[in-house]
Amino acid sequence: MSSDSIHESCGVFGVFNNPRAAHLVYLGLYALQHRGQESSGIAVSDGNTVNIHKAMGLVGHVFKHQSTIENLKGHSAIGHNRYSTTGASTIENAQPILINCRAGQIAGAHNGNLINADSLRKRMVNDGSIFMSTTDTEVIMHLIARSKRETIEAMILDALSGVEGAYSVVFLASDTLYGARDPRGIRPLILGKNSEGSFFLSSETCAFDLSGAQMIREIEPGEMVRIDKRGIVSYRIPVFEPEIRPAHCVFEFIYFSRPDSFVFGSNVDKIRRKFGRQLAIDFPVKDADLVMGVPDSATTAALGFSEQSGIRFDIGLIRNHYVGRTFIHPGQSGRDFGTRIKFNPVKGVLKGKKVVIVDDSIVRGTTMLKIIRLVKTAEPAQIHLRISSPPVMCPCFYGIDMPTESELIASNRNVEEIRQYLEVDSLGYLSVEGMQSVLPGPENFCTACFNGKYPMLEKNVEKEMVGGQF
Amino acid sequence: MSSDSIHESCGVFGVFNNPRAAHLVYLGLYALQHRGQESSGIAVSDGNTVNIHKAMGLVGHVFKHQSTIENLKGHSAIGHNRYSTTGASTIENAQPILINCRAGQIAGAHNGNLINADSLRKRMVNDGSIFMSTTDTEVIMHLIARSKRETIEAMILDALSGVEGAYSVVFLASDTLYGARDPRGIRPLILGKNSEGSFFLSSETCAFDLSGAQMIREIEPGEMVRIDKRGIVSYRIPVFEPEIRPAHCVFEFIYFSRPDSFVFGSNVDKIRRKFGRQLAIDFPVKDADLVMGVPDSATTAALGFSEQSGIRFDIGLIRNHYVGRTFIHPGQSGRDFGTRIKFNPVKGVLKGKKVVIVDDSIVRGTTMLKIIRLVKTAEPAQIHLRISSPPVMCPCFYGIDMPTESELIASNRNVEEIRQYLEVDSLGYLSVEGMQSVLPGPENFCTACFNGKYPMLEKNVEKEMVGGQF
Amino acid sequence: MSSDSIHESCGVFGVFNNPRAAHLVYLGLYALQHRGQESSGIAVSDGNTVNIHKAMGLVGHVFKHQSTIENLKGHSAIGHNRYSTTGASTIENAQPILINCRAGQIAGAHNGNLINADSLRKRMVNDGSIFMSTTDTEVIMHLIARSKRETIEAMILDALSGVEGAYSVVFLASDTLYGARDPRGIRPLILGKNSEGSFFLSSETCAFDLSGAQMIREIEPGEMVRIDKRGIVSYRIPVFEPEIRPAHCVFEFIYFSRPDSFVFGSNVDKIRRKFGRQLAIDFPVKDADLVMGVPDSATTAALGFSEQSGIRFDIGLIRNHYVGRTFIHPGQSGRDFGTRIKFNPVKGVLKGKKVVIVDDSIVRGTTMLKIIRLVKTAEPAQIHLRISSPPVMCPCFYGIDMPTESELIASNRNVEEIRQYLEVDSLGYLSVEGMQSVLPGPENFCTACFNGKYPMLEKNVEKEMVGGQF
Amino acid sequence: MSSDSIHESCGVFGVFNNPRAAHLVYLGLYALQHRGQESSGIAVSDGNTVNIHKAMGLVGHVFKHQSTIENLKGHSAIGHNRYSTTGASTIENAQPILINCRAGQIAGAHNGNLINADSLRKRMVNDGSIFMSTTDTEVIMHLIARSKRETIEAMILDALSGVEGAYSVVFLASDTLYGARDPRGIRPLILGKNSEGSFFLSSETCAFDLSGAQMIREIEPGEMVRIDKRGIVSYRIPVFEPEIRPAHCVFEFIYFSRPDSFVFGSNVDKIRRKFGRQLAIDFPVKDADLVMGVPDSATTAALGFSEQSGIRFDIGLIRNHYVGRTFIHPGQSGRDFGTRIKFNPVKGVLKGKKVVIVDDSIVRGTTMLKIIRLVKTAEPAQIHLRISSPPVMCPCFYGIDMPTESELIASNRNVEEIRQYLEVDSLGYLSVEGMQSVLPGPENFCTACFNGKYPMLEKNVEKEMVGGQF
Repeated sequence: MSSDSIHESCGVFGVFNNPRAAHLVYLGLYALQHRGQESSGIAVSDGNTVNIHKAMGLVGHVFKHQSTIENLKGHSAIGHNRYSTTGASTIENAQPILINCRAGQIAGAHNGNLINADSLRKRMVNDGSIFMSTTDTEVIMHLIARSKRETIEAMILDALSGVEGAYSVVFLASDTLYGARDPRGIRPLILGKNSEGSFFLSSETCAFDLSGAQMIREIEPGEMVRIDKRGIVSYRIPVFEPEIRPAHCVFEFIYFSRPDSFVFGSNVDKIRRKFGRQLAIDFPVKDADLVMGVPDSATTAALGFSEQSGIRFDIGLIRNHYVGRTFIHPGQSGRDFGTRIKFNPVKGVLKGKKVVIVDDSIVRGTTMLKIIRLVKTAEPAQIHLRISSPPVMCPCFYGIDMPTESELIASNRNVEEIRQYLEVDSLGYLSVEGMQSVLPGPENFCTACFNGKYPMLEKNVEKEMVGGQF
Repeated sequence: MSSDSIHESCGVFGVFNNPRAAHLVYLGLYALQHRGQESSGIAVSDGNTVNIHKAMGLVGHVFKHQSTIENLKGHSAIGHNRYSTTGASTIENAQPILINCRAGQIAGAHNGNLINADSLRKRMVNDGSIFMSTTDTEVIMHLIARSKRETIEAMILDALSGVEGAYSVVFLASDTLYGARDPRGIRPLILGKNSEGSFFLSSETCAFDLSGAQMIREIEPGEMVRIDKRGIVSYRIPVFEPEIRPAHCVFEFIYFSRPDSFVFGSNVDKIRRKFGRQLAIDFPVKDADLVMGVPDSATTAALGFSEQSGIRFDIGLIRNHYVGRTFIHPGQSGRDFGTRIKFNPVKGVLKGKKVVIVDDSIVRGTTMLKIIRLVKTAEPAQIHLRISSPPVMCPCFYGIDMPTESELIASNRNVEEIRQYLEVDSLGYLSVEGMQSVLPGPENFCTACFNGKYPMLEKNVEKEMVGGQF
Repeated sequence: MSSDSIHESCGVFGVFNNPRAAHLVYLGLYALQHRGQESSGIAVSDGNTVNIHKAMGLVGHVFKHQSTIENLKGHSAIGHNRYSTTGASTIENAQPILINCRAGQIAGAHNGNLINADSLRKRMVNDGSIFMSTTDTEVIMHLIARSKRETIEAMILDALSGVEGAYSVVFLASDTLYGARDPRGIRPLILGKNSEGSFFLSSETCAFDLSGAQMIREIEPGEMVRIDKRGIVSYRIPVFEPEIRPAHCVFEFIYFSRPDSFVFGSNVDKIRRKFGRQLAIDFPVKDADLVMGVPDSATTAALGFSEQSGIRFDIGLIRNHYVGRTFIHPGQSGRDFGTRIKFNPVKGVLKGKKVVIVDDSIVRGTTMLKIIRLVKTAEPAQIHLRISSPPVMCPCFYGIDMPTESELIASNRNVEEIRQYLEVDSLGYLSVEGMQSVLPGPENFCTACFNGKYPMLEKNVEKEMVGGQF
Repeated sequence: MSSDSIHESCGVFGVFNNPRAAHLVYLGLYALQHRGQESSGIAVSDGNTVNIHKAMGLVGHVFKHQSTIENLKGHSAIGHNRYSTTGASTIENAQPILINCRAGQIAGAHNGNLINADSLRKRMVNDGSIFMSTTDTEVIMHLIARSKRETIEAMILDALSGVEGAYSVVFLASDTLYGARDPRGIRPLILGKNSEGSFFLSSETCAFDLSGAQMIREIEPGEMVRIDKRGIVSYRIPVFEPEIRPAHCVFEFIYFSRPDSFVFGSNVDKIRRKFGRQLAIDFPVKDADLVMGVPDSATTAALGFSEQSGIRFDIGLIRNHYVGRTFIHPGQSGRDFGTRIKFNPVKGVLKGKKVVIVDDSIVRGTTMLKIIRLVKTAEPAQIHLRISSPPVMCPCFYGIDMPTESELIASNRNVEEIRQYLEVDSLGYLSVEGMQSVLPGPENFCTACFNGKYPMLEKNVEKEMVGGQF
C-alpha cells in the first residue's frame, strides 16, 4: 500500500510446551512485524509465575539484549506486536497485558477491535473498575476478572460472550495457553504444532516457519481452545444472538497478511494475485509497456495483472528499507520527504514508457498523489493507475485504523474525480463483484468498507451508533 | 545477492553551499545506506570550524535525535557510510576522519581500497607517525598532512599521487569541498547541482534525488575537483606511470549500486537487466513455470531473464526487511536462523513448479545452499539456478571484501561440482564474454575477480604480493 | 546508617497552581531523593488531562532529557520517589499510579504501608478487580474507584476510611490536588505555599526550599486537604474506632528525614543531635581521642555526642558519593566491595587513637561488622561503638522495610553478645527511656520496633497476624 | 570548595600482573572519581594486543555493563578519569589514547598540563603530523612515535625530555607498564604492590585500598619506572637545564586530593587540618557559636579551625549528593538553582548564631556569594568567613583549570573589598607564610597562584608568554 492511512491493529503469537518458548515467540513476532511496529512484548510462564517484558519499538529493538530473552524463562509464552488503533502511543497500551486477578496471573494479547468496548468500559468504570490503558484488551481482562465462573476457561468464555466485534486473542495462565476467535472470524488465528510436540497459535502461518511448526488448522470462528499438558480442548464461545455467519476481513487478503501466509482457508498470495488478474480483465490497458506495483504490498497484484494482460512486469519504484521510525525531517523545506525517502523511481525503466501502476488500495489519496508525482519525475509517457480493491467508502469498526468518512477520498468523489485529483491518465478500481468472484465463499467475507454492509446485527449497530460510541 | 560474503566498502556524499548542508548529507546517506551499514558520520564546516558526529550503526540510528543534525551547523558537509573491509568494527574506524594538520582542519571520507596502504603506513610509522585507526583513509590523511606543498589542493594531489589502488574520496576543509577519483576510476563518484546553486558529490546518483539535485557529470578517473565560492576547478592527479586505462569495477553493475543509479556512464538497471537477458540466451531453461530472483538485489536480472525467455516472473521468496543488525540467535538450535528469518518461501507460488532462480553472484556458496534448501521446503518440482555474473575465482584488491581464494567455491570446483554441492537441477553462470558483450566499452572494466587480470602494473602487483601485504 | 537493611518506602511531593508545576515537582523530588532511589515519576494536569512520566532510576536519570519535563505541561502536579518495600523492583510498581475511573483520571502517590492491604486486595480480587502492580497504592486507587460516593473527595475519604496503617498520600485530579495522612500520623506530610500563591505538599520541608516555598503547617493526623482554585478545604477521614492517638514513626528522627527538615513539629537536626547528647550521658567513653559518625546519616548524632562529652569530633571515614546503583562487582574475589567502595578510613585520623564511632541504628549487624573491620585497617587503638537508637527487636508493619525478627541481631543476642560479634571494645545503645526523654510528647511516637508496642488496636493486630498477612 | 571554577585535570591508575587487571583499574578509577568526571577509559593488554573502552561520563556510567569490563581481558591495564582543562568536552579527548606506532601499540594517560604543548604541536604539525584531539597527551604520544631511539623506554624518555610542564603519566605497551613524573614533581604519582605480586600506579593512595595494595613509594620527580615480568627498573628523565627543584602543587593539599590519601610525603588530612589550625591562629573569631565547613572539601580545614579555636564544629549546610551532571534547569526563573539544589542550610543549627564558615579557596567569588546568601536564609546572627588558603591572584600553567587573571576576585580587590562583595561580617585568608609554616619543606612547593613565583626557568616563561601560548 502506498499509504500510511490504514493500519492493522496487531499480531499475536503463542507457544506451549517448549523450553525455549520466549525465543520462539520472539521469532514469531519478527515474522509478524508487518502487523504492528509501535510496541512489542512477550509474557512467559514457568509453570508458576508469569513474567513479561514489553516496550515501544520494533521487535528487534525491544529485545535487543540477549539477556532480555534469556531472563524470560518458561515453557509457555505469548507475544504481541501493536499498531495503535486508538491514537494513544504509550507504553501503558503495549501488550500483552498482565493482570493479577481472582484466578491468579493472566496475560492477554489481542488483535481486533471491539464495537462495544466503550459501553462495557463505561459500565465497569461506573461499577468501580479502574483502567490504566485505552486498549480493548484491558476491557476483556476486566471482564475475565469479574466473571463469577469457577475455572479460568469458563471465566474467559464468560468474558468473550459479552464482547461484540473482532478479536483474535491469546491468553497465558500459569500452566495453560488459550486462543479464541470471535464468532464472525473477522481476524485470522491459526493453530500449529512442531515435531517436538510444541503447540503454536499465530495471526498468520508465516510466523510458524521459523519455529519449524506446521499448521494444524485455523481456530474456528467462535471457538476457544485450551492447550495444556493434557492436550487441546475446544470450546464454543456462548452467543446470545439468532445466527451469525462468518465475516472475514477481506483486507487481510488485500493488504494486511504476508503473501506467504495461509489465512481464511486460502494462500494469501493466490487470492491477491487473482485480484490483480481480475483487475486486468475489468480495466485493461491497451499497448502499455510495463506493469509495476507500489512496493512491497502491491507487487503480487501487479504480477497477477501482468500475467493476465501479458504486459511485462517491471520494477519502477525502489523502496528504501532502511527508513525506520526515527527519520528526521530536515526542517523548513516544503518537499515531501516522507514519500521521497521511502521510494525512488527508476528512470531507466520508466522514461517515455506507458506505465500501469498497481496499488492495493486508496484511502485518503494524498500519499497516492505524492507517489504519482514522484513517478512523473522519471518522465513516463502515460500513467494508468489500477487499484486491486474497490473504492474504500465507509469506515471500519473492526480493528482497521481508518480515517473518518469525510477523509475517505472515495466517499466524496467519483472515480473520474479521483482520477483528476491523482493526475493520472486512467484509473480503474477492482469492482466489488470482481473481488467477490475471486473470494472463496464470498458471503463469508466482510466488505463493509466498500459497501457499508456491516456484518453485525442491525439493532446493535444502531444502538451503539446512536450512543455515539464511534 | 544471497550471500553476506561480499561487501562493498562505503558510500560517500558531499554538499557545498547549502544552509542545510548536514541535513542534505543525512538524506544522501539514507539513499546510500546499501553501501555500508556498520557506521555513519557527517562532518560539517561553518566556514571556520569543522565539526563532526559519527557512531556505529545505520544512518537512522546515528542521527536519531533531531538535535544532532541541528548542531551540525554550516554550509558545507561530507558524510560516509562504512562497511568494514578489514574486519575491525570499531568507532575508531568510523568516517569521516577529522584531523588537525598544518593546513588546518580537514575531514576525509573514502570509498575504495588502497593496495599500497600497508607499505605506506609502515613507512610513515617508521618515520614517527601514529595511527589510531586501521583505515586506508587515515593513510591518505597522513600523506596530506606530510606534504610540503603550499596549498591544500596541492597537498591532496601530492598525497593521492602516492597511493595506488581504488579510491573515490571527498574532503572538507573550512571553506572548500574536494572530490577525487583514482586514475582507473574503479569506484564511481558523481558531481551534481541543484536549483539553489548547491553542489553535490555522491557515490551514486540515487542519492541526489532527495536533495532535488541533478547529475552534472561523473568525476573523471584521475580527476580531482575543488569546489569553493568561486566555482569548480578541475585538477589532474599526478601519475608516475606510463599508461593507465579505466578499470571500473563491474560489480557495481552486478550488485553494489542501486538499480535507480547512473554510474560509469550507464543506468545500473539497464546493464543489470541485460545481464539477465544474456544469461537467458546462454543458459536457457525449457518449459520452466516461473523465474524468480533472490530479493532484492537479483530482481532486476531476473526480470531480464524473464523478458528474454518469456518465462513468467514471480515472487517466490519474501524478504523480511525488519531484520536488523541486532537479531538474537535463539541459542542451542542447529537451524540456520540467519537465512530463515530473512527469507520465507511462498508455497503458493513454488509448490510443484519448475522454477528458475536468478541470483547475482556466488561467493562461498554456503548461503546459496541454505536458500536453495529453504526454497525446497516449498516443494518445487525442479530448481534451475542462474547466476547473472561469471564464477568468482580470484580475490579483489580494490575494496571488495571477499573471502580468500581457497574459500571461493568457484576456485576449487567446476560448475558441475558446484551444481552438485548446491543440490540444484541445473546451474548456469553468465560467461565473461557474455558479460562483456553487455558492457559499454568492456575494455574499461576490471574483471579480475573472474579471470585474474588485475588492472594494475604487473611489477607493482608482484612486488606487493611478494611483500606479503595481502 | 551503616546498613542497607532498613529502607523507607517513599517520598511524595505535590504542587498546585504554578505554570512550571512539573519543574517544581522535579526539584522537590531531587530534595527527597534520600527517601527512595528505585524509581521516580511525575503526573501533571493541565486542567483537563493528567499526563505522566515514570521510569526506574534516580530523579536525575528519569528526567535527564529537558524535553521530558517540558512535555509535562500543566499547573498542578504530583511526584514520587520509590524505594521498594515489597521486593518487586519493576516499572509496574513505579508511582504515581494513574487510573481512569468513574470520576475521571486520578493519579496517586503514597508513602507508607497498609496493614490490611492484602485482605483488601484479596476481597477486591474476589470481587473481580484486576491488579497490575503489587503496591498498596493500587489498593487505595481501587477503593476510590469502587466508592459509590458522589464527589472525588468523598470517594477518597470513603477509600481511606477503609484502610488501616501508615499513609501519607497525594492525589491529582484534573483540577484538584489532595493530600491526606493516616489517623496516627505515622509518616509526615507538610503543607507549604510560596509567594506566587502556589500550594505545596511534601514528605519533608527540605523539599520546599528549592521552590521558595514556606511551610504553612503539617497535615494533621487523620486529615485530608483538598486544594483547588477556591482554596484549601480540610476534611477529617472517617474512622470507625473508639480512640486513636498519634504514633509518629520515631525512625524519621533517627534516620529517614534529612536533618534540615522539619517534621512532627520539630527540627530533625535538633532531635537527632539530642539523641547523640543523651547517648553520651548514658554511655560515656573515658579518655577517648575522637568521636566520629558513620557518614552521612550518623554525623548529627555524633556531633551531639561530641558536644556533650567534650570529645573532639572528627571525620574518620570518607564516603565516596560517586558510587551509584550500577556498581559491577569484580567477580571472584571474596572481599566485600560493597562496603569498601563506599567508605574509606582516614589513617591519619584514626591510627593509634581511642575512637568513638556513632551510628544511628543496627539492624542485622553484618554491615556494621564490615565497617568496624574496615576502620580497623587504619589501626585505631580502641573502638567504642555508640548507637543513637535503642536495639531494633521487632519488625515494622508501617512502611519500613526491615528483615524478619530472626534476622534482627538484637532479637537474638544481648548487648554483650552483639559487642563480641562486632569485635569492638565497648558498645552502648541509646535506651528507650533516653530516647523518649528527648522526644517532644513521647507518647505520640511509635516505638514498636524497639519494644513491640504496636500502636494499632489489639484485636486488629491479632486478627491480621493470625490471618497470616505478614 | 564552594566553586566550580578550579578543576584538576585528571586521575590516572595502572595495574601490572593481575588476571583481573581491568577490574582493578575500574575500582581504582572509582576512588579517583573526584579528580575528573567528564570521561573515563580503560586500556588493557593481554600480552599481545592492547584493547580500550572509553566514553563520556562517570566511571559507573562508562562501565555500567558487566560485559564491558569482562571483554577487557588481560593482565595489565591503565585507566583515566578526565576533567577537561582545555574546554573541549568531546570523546576525541577521552583517555587513555591508544596509538599504533613504530614500537607497536602504546596507550597513554596523563595528569597535568604541558607549558610547551602548543609549540611542540605546532612544530610537529608543520612537520606533517596530524592531531585528532586537543590533549597534551596526544602531543606526548607523537613525540614517542617520532623518537629515533631503539626501545620503547628510550623512546618515552626521549619524548619526556622534550616536554616542559606538569605530568604524571602512565603508559601501557603489550607487556610493559610505565609510569613517569615530571622533574618538578608537580602532580603526585604513587607506586604500590599487593600481596599477589601485582604492581600499581596511582595519582593518589586512596585508590590502592580497594585492590588491597600497599604504597611502596612515590615515583620521584624526574623518574620513570618500567614494570615488566622481570620487575621494576628506574630511569631518570633526561633534563637539559642547570637545576630543577621540586615544585609540588600545593593545591593537592588544599583541595584536589582526597583527605585519606598520602601524597608528597604527607597525609593530606593532616596538612589540610593544619591549614585550618593556622587559620584560626591568624584570624580568630571571638565568641563564635560554631564553625562549619563548606561540604565536603572544606570539612577537614574546618575541623582544624574548631580544634585550635575551641569553637564547636557543626554541620550547617547539607550537600545533596544525588545531583548529577544532567540537572535540568527549570527555565525562566532567576534563582540560582545550581547552588541551591546542591546545598541546603540547616536552620536549626544556624538561626541566630554567630557562625564561622571555612572554605578552602575563593576563585571568582561568585559561587561563594551564592552560598553566603543561601546560608543567610537560615538567619544566622553573623557570618565570619575563613579561607584555608591564600588569595588566588595568578593563573596556573600546570594543569589547574583557572579563570584568567582578570576574573580572579583577589587580583582585582583587596581583602576588605572582597569582604564587602561577599557580604560577610569578617573575612580572613590563610597567609602565604602561614601556609608555608605548615608545609613540610615549603621550598619544594609551587605557590605561584598565590604569589606569581612560577617554578620554571625565567627565560622559558617569558618566551612562551610572549609567544602568546596561553
